[in-house]
Amino acid sequence: MLEQGNDATFKAAESLAEQIARHVGRQIITGDLVEGERIQELRIASELNVSRGSVREALLILERRHLIEIYPRRGAVVAEMSAQQIKSLFEIVTLLLSVMVRRAADNWRQSDAESFTALLEKMQQLVRDGDIEGFYESSFAFFRMSYRFSMNPYIEEILEDLQPALQRGYYLALHTNKRELQEAYNFFKGVLEAVLLRKGEQAADLVGDFCLHLRSLVLDSLARMKQIELAWAQRSRR
Amino acid sequence: MLEQGNDATFKAAESLAEQIARHVGRQIITGDLVEGERIQELRIASELNVSRGSVREALLILERRHLIEIYPRRGAVVAEMSAQQIKSLFEIVTLLLSVMVRRAADNWRQSDAESFTALLEKMQQLVRDGDIEGFYESSFAFFRMSYRFSMNPYIEEILEDLQPALQRGYYLALHTNKRELQEAYNFFKGVLEAVLLRKGEQAADLVGDFCLHLRSLVLDSLARMKQIELAWAQRSRR
Repeated sequence: MLEQGNDATFKAAESLAEQIARHVGRQIITGDLVEGERIQELRIASELNVSRGSVREALLILERRHLIEIYPRRGAVVAEMSAQQIKSLFEIVTLLLSVMVRRAADNWRQSDAESFTALLEKMQQLVRDGDIEGFYESSFAFFRMSYRFSMNPYIEEILEDLQPALQRGYYLALHTNKRELQEAYNFFKGVLEAVLLRKGEQAADLVGDFCLHLRSLVLDSLARMKQIELAWAQRSRR
Repeated sequence: MLEQGNDATFKAAESLAEQIARHVGRQIITGDLVEGERIQELRIASELNVSRGSVREALLILERRHLIEIYPRRGAVVAEMSAQQIKSLFEIVTLLLSVMVRRAADNWRQSDAESFTALLEKMQQLVRDGDIEGFYESSFAFFRMSYRFSMNPYIEEILEDLQPALQRGYYLALHTNKRELQEAYNFFKGVLEAVLLRKGEQAADLVGDFCLHLRSLVLDSLARMKQIELAWAQRSRR
């Protein structure tokens, strides 16, 4: 019934609402659904051949993941993507990731090191192949593997809920700027090395620097996109 | 159909799912529903005379507010309330409130000062009257009025979603220790004064100190409650 997104590891126990949320979430992340666009419950229900109740549950999941806003009696719309929103997003993500890498530096064990090192090797190969899509998925797999090192279930959950909004911004940046693969790889490599050396502060500094870099990149891509939209709007008005 | 909780300001546009979530949320906050207890969709639906679909939506809202955990195919249970969970909760709350008060100190305007000062006067009266319930509600009204000063919609949302879990812990502490009213009042007064003097760091320090104080209080109340539960369990085994 539902196609699985590239990044969706199939989980047997995943609820129908969760599957619908992933499906619609992916459309928002990749820009198929744009900010302010209305999410029509009935259309989704009939397209996916699911009940309207399941769609309503999926919308609550997407709201929690900051991809849509639900207005009582008016329905759901895709969350905005503005410079201010990107700045706010990076502020909270940087804050929480800094806590997380400091903890990781204190608490990692040998088995953790191995899985991260293996993922990093895979990422290096993806950079060599210029595989943007693959690298993009691996970046977020890297993040997702990291959250539990915050040693705080609330921070873990909040980071997981923020990830889709971050993916949405990063998607825009990475797909307009291919040279970024190497830069991003260097970040993941650097932060892993610092953590493995138990240098929490150095890891937190790297996170801060890279988040700032990524933020500018996303802001630039956003500005360019808005310019293109404006140009098209003007052209169609002639 | 639904009774309005004391703290629930009636909103015309509030969805049915939101009303159900508030109703069940209040039972968790006040300890009528205890950690690990199963939340039965069908029982709630028939008790409140609402559809099962609306209850499922309400459960997603409660999960987002950290009051329950939903396990696919196994249903929902009330979230744990352990020393580790309380510590994690206070860690993230302290972090975000510190950001918030620093921002507030930089950004408040005259009209903000007036509404906070009025609320503080009301709180002073509630302390004089020894009105625990009223003071408790006003404390969270104070918090709720403060979130937007984070100037970051994500932080605002995260704080709002964390508030019920904080209420749950604070409820336990305040109702076992009445002398705390004055202490809590002094905190709200102190932090407001610091913010109005634009002393963001001082306000953040006060938040840090009070959160630590509150954390010990909640941890003590929790330990005492677990002891009582244990004593009862042993007695019933004889």
